[in-house]
Amino acid sequence: MKIALAQLNYHIGNFEQNTQRIIENITLAKAKGADIVVFAELAICGYPARDFLEFSEFISLCEEAAQQIAKHCVDIACIVGLPIKNEVLEGKDLYNAAYFIEDGKIKAITKKALLPTYDVFDEYRYFEPNTKFECIEFKGKKIALTICEDLWNINDNPLYVSCPMDELIKQSPDVMINIAASPFNYRHDEDRIQILADNAKKYKLPLFYVNQVGAQTEIIFDGGSLVFDETGEVKAEMKYFEEDLQVFDVDEIQNVKNKYPQPDRASDITQIHDALIMGIQDYFRKSGFSKAVLGLSGGIDSAIVCALACRALGAENVMAVLMPSKYSSDHSVKDALDLVNTIGCKHEIIEIKEAANAFDSMLAKPFTGLAANLTEENIQARCRGIVLMAMSNKFGYILLNTSNKSECAVGYGTLYGDMCGAIGVIGDVYKTQIFELARYINKDGEVIPENTIVKPPSAELRPDQKDSDSLPDYGILDQILFQHIELQKGSKAIIAQGFDEALVQRILKMVNLAEFKRYQTPPILRVSPKAFGMGRRMPIVGKYMA
Amino acid sequence: MKIALAQLNYHIGNFEQNTQRIIENITLAKAKGADIVVFAELAICGYPARDFLEFSEFISLCEEAAQQIAKHCVDIACIVGLPIKNEVLEGKDLYNAAYFIEDGKIKAITKKALLPTYDVFDEYRYFEPNTKFECIEFKGKKIALTICEDLWNINDNPLYVSCPMDELIKQSPDVMINIAASPFNYRHDEDRIQILADNAKKYKLPLFYVNQVGAQTEIIFDGGSLVFDETGEVKAEMKYFEEDLQVFDVDEIQNVKNKYPQPDRASDITQIHDALIMGIQDYFRKSGFSKAVLGLSGGIDSAIVCALACRALGAENVMAVLMPSKYSSDHSVKDALDLVNTIGCKHEIIEIKEAANAFDSMLAKPFTGLAANLTEENIQARCRGIVLMAMSNKFGYILLNTSNKSECAVGYGTLYGDMCGAIGVIGDVYKTQIFELARYINKDGEVIPENTIVKPPSAELRPDQKDSDSLPDYGILDQILFQHIELQKGSKAIIAQGFDEALVQRILKMVNLAEFKRYQTPPILRVSPKAFGMGRRMPIVGKYMA
Repeated sequence: MKIALAQLNYHIGNFEQNTQRIIENITLAKAKGADIVVFAELAICGYPARDFLEFSEFISLCEEAAQQIAKHCVDIACIVGLPIKNEVLEGKDLYNAAYFIEDGKIKAITKKALLPTYDVFDEYRYFEPNTKFECIEFKGKKIALTICEDLWNINDNPLYVSCPMDELIKQSPDVMINIAASPFNYRHDEDRIQILADNAKKYKLPLFYVNQVGAQTEIIFDGGSLVFDETGEVKAEMKYFEEDLQVFDVDEIQNVKNKYPQPDRASDITQIHDALIMGIQDYFRKSGFSKAVLGLSGGIDSAIVCALACRALGAENVMAVLMPSKYSSDHSVKDALDLVNTIGCKHEIIEIKEAANAFDSMLAKPFTGLAANLTEENIQARCRGIVLMAMSNKFGYILLNTSNKSECAVGYGTLYGDMCGAIGVIGDVYKTQIFELARYINKDGEVIPENTIVKPPSAELRPDQKDSDSLPDYGILDQILFQHIELQKGSKAIIAQGFDEALVQRILKMVNLAEFKRYQTPPILRVSPKAFGMGRRMPIVGKYMA
Repeated sequence: MKIALAQLNYHIGNFEQNTQRIIENITLAKAKGADIVVFAELAICGYPARDFLEFSEFISLCEEAAQQIAKHCVDIACIVGLPIKNEVLEGKDLYNAAYFIEDGKIKAITKKALLPTYDVFDEYRYFEPNTKFECIEFKGKKIALTICEDLWNINDNPLYVSCPMDELIKQSPDVMINIAASPFNYRHDEDRIQILADNAKKYKLPLFYVNQVGAQTEIIFDGGSLVFDETGEVKAEMKYFEEDLQVFDVDEIQNVKNKYPQPDRASDITQIHDALIMGIQDYFRKSGFSKAVLGLSGGIDSAIVCALACRALGAENVMAVLMPSKYSSDHSVKDALDLVNTIGCKHEIIEIKEAANAFDSMLAKPFTGLAANLTEENIQARCRGIVLMAMSNKFGYILLNTSNKSECAVGYGTLYGDMCGAIGVIGDVYKTQIFELARYINKDGEVIPENTIVKPPSAELRPDQKDSDSLPDYGILDQILFQHIELQKGSKAIIAQGFDEALVQRILKMVNLAEFKRYQTPPILRVSPKAFGMGRRMPIVGKYMA
């Protein structure tokens, strides 16, 4: 039996396009001699469809698409994920399911049992967990089909009490197939391989795993579909951050060692780089835009976003706006222009002095006798926000946000100013990682100017300002933030590791007080195990650690 | 046995204050002769604590607070809600639980079984559902204690398969107690009374129900704790939108009819009014601020927010900023000043011309040859946003957002302009309800100027602009929006009701395209069954209905 794994880039709710891509790949798999082609979890509607799932017309469209796909499953079978109605009217309205289609007909339905609700996941909001398990018989073989998380309760994972494969194995299957929507983070690929290998080993069965690829706003799928033999050895690893279709012979895979070469594991920074490129591309393509605008300050954050945007969209589609003020250093404009000239994107220079002066004058009466302070710094940042949004509105550019994760965490940014944008490109990348990313971007020749990388970070909103005036050294800050955000440690646990008590308390307080700002920031491309956004839901008017 | 129901206003994560209030009310209940005092669901940490619950130090603080409270339970017992660790290390880390405390010691623990995950709820993200049920014995009576949703599977509610009271009733309890965190919406009080009455009737037991009161950012608890006799008759209804403590004799309540008078049911608009006042008050009090700023246009939306803010915070704590432009009509400033004079709040008049001209001049080069359009309208709205945020930053005012639900729905607003603010006061109130609310505010004398109510709505961003240039009549618009947002109907179902096909499709498309704006708007005080925010989670780059 030959199995094709089709690793595709779906678009949430775009039934026409998803259906067309699925049908194209059924045809392709058939041409390559496959007996069955396997698509990912919820492939028909895209993942995560969120509250679209609560609209019954949306669910009907999924079913209609499946019927259309079924017509093309002649001389080839197909497994494809979609939400289906829970007809018994007890429990949640839906199941997260997969259809097994053969001879143009839906022959079997598999439902997901383990529904993640941690981090970015909300599956229990929509789906009833499955409790009945049955293998699929096809071409004389029994297939144990599971959906994503269903294989993740191995190794005594305490999160789940049931184990779908422990039920399915009683029916003596010949092969395991798992269809997934497994979001990328730079630590996830190795965990995924380990968990899946452990399943193959435990159940002594070959395992075919198909993931999806592409970004759905903030959530990025990296692909990397996998094949294991019954000893848990990786026999094939499909492309990362690209669509792919490969055909495997089930009987051959069990006997032949290392037929399919494995690439070297990519570094965290390589993966982050590729994920961000895909995140930008898919945000634009799936929302029907092609051109980006951003503010280019001469600093490292906006330089990196500019470089990534040019790689993702083409330099000809990127407009960099330089907006110097009286506090901008001489080198800022030069560094920004050096980048623009190297990279070949469009640029405008628009000084903000006139608008900043206008606000000073308009506010002179209410502000009489009061010294300039953070208010006036914020006005400058917000004037830049207006200019960028005006460029966006006038020319149909999408504004890219350039805030990094360290700034987002401690609230070192101006709401409605530098925190504007449709999508946060590097909001899940700590400042210390930003420097690594700059070096990675420059690995084949200087793109980000050296001076941009080595100069001390500054917001340049008052004379001789440096980030280090307000914030601790990024090396220390990022370590403490990682403990608190990624590892969810409180102040006591972090202090116990030897960090300065007052510093830890100050930073955690800043993180919590900035919750009201983060609530209003753009969605952020998720590349870490714990990004700001849907995966981290904090009270705003809450007092813990604030 | 005398039961005290303590209906308090908690603050998420403010352990010091919550514990102190609980202890004060234990003392008060004891002084009133109660044998036991009952506090609400998750009273110790506040509801919803969201991902604070994922920090083990947070859970430890809950336990420490409970131990402190226990010391005060001498000569009186107490039931109090808190999250506790799931010690068996299988399933989720926590239970949503209640301690029964007697003689200074925790004598019994009750855990919640039915965990809501719809709308604003995320309980399955944190909590393991309970499966073992046991009554509490106290003073010769058996108490069937349940937590909120545990009583909501009556009347063939298909959402849940288990029914905690069906288990508890087997132990022949004498009385039911339910502790809740039941968020307000203007339709919820009657549903709540019905469901609880049905429980009392079904199990033939008196029922004591304690809710909490107060706002936690966007979620508002209305109180209205209830006592039912074993026939399901309401014997007592406690205060709405206020703290309250009342003591009831269990034996007396079963025999005496209507001892406690029920107030007339408040109208939807009365409830919305009172909820918004509490929402504003608690946002300020719990975040440590006292003064508000808002932009006052002369239109009805900002007039209402101004009136509500003055009632909530005192007129002396409200700063209204009038920001006329060349497109403002003559009556706008007059209407705004009429309101300010009636209501007695502070005001400033700051014309935006100078800043708007500055941006025109700064953008003259890139905009060469292009006609003024929506871009220039947005610049005006954003200039106002900068002025308001400058007032906020300089004087420590919190900016109130004045967008209504109809505008939020269709994206009729400028991101980083009139969509700025820390909290959206009327973002869950449709424009048609806004007019009703204005009449209600004026019921004892004109506060909102008559001309503000009767003039045609306009954003005044270009000459002679009217909302009706871009939007259908609010009467029709709001009906279609209600079908789509509150009732989650798709276009086919709405068109089938007789609404114009093209209009329905146009409106639903606007709603879906505005998702990217709503993602960046402030939290919105929730008064309806389906508010924008945590309770409505939509994809941004999704194509369904767009």
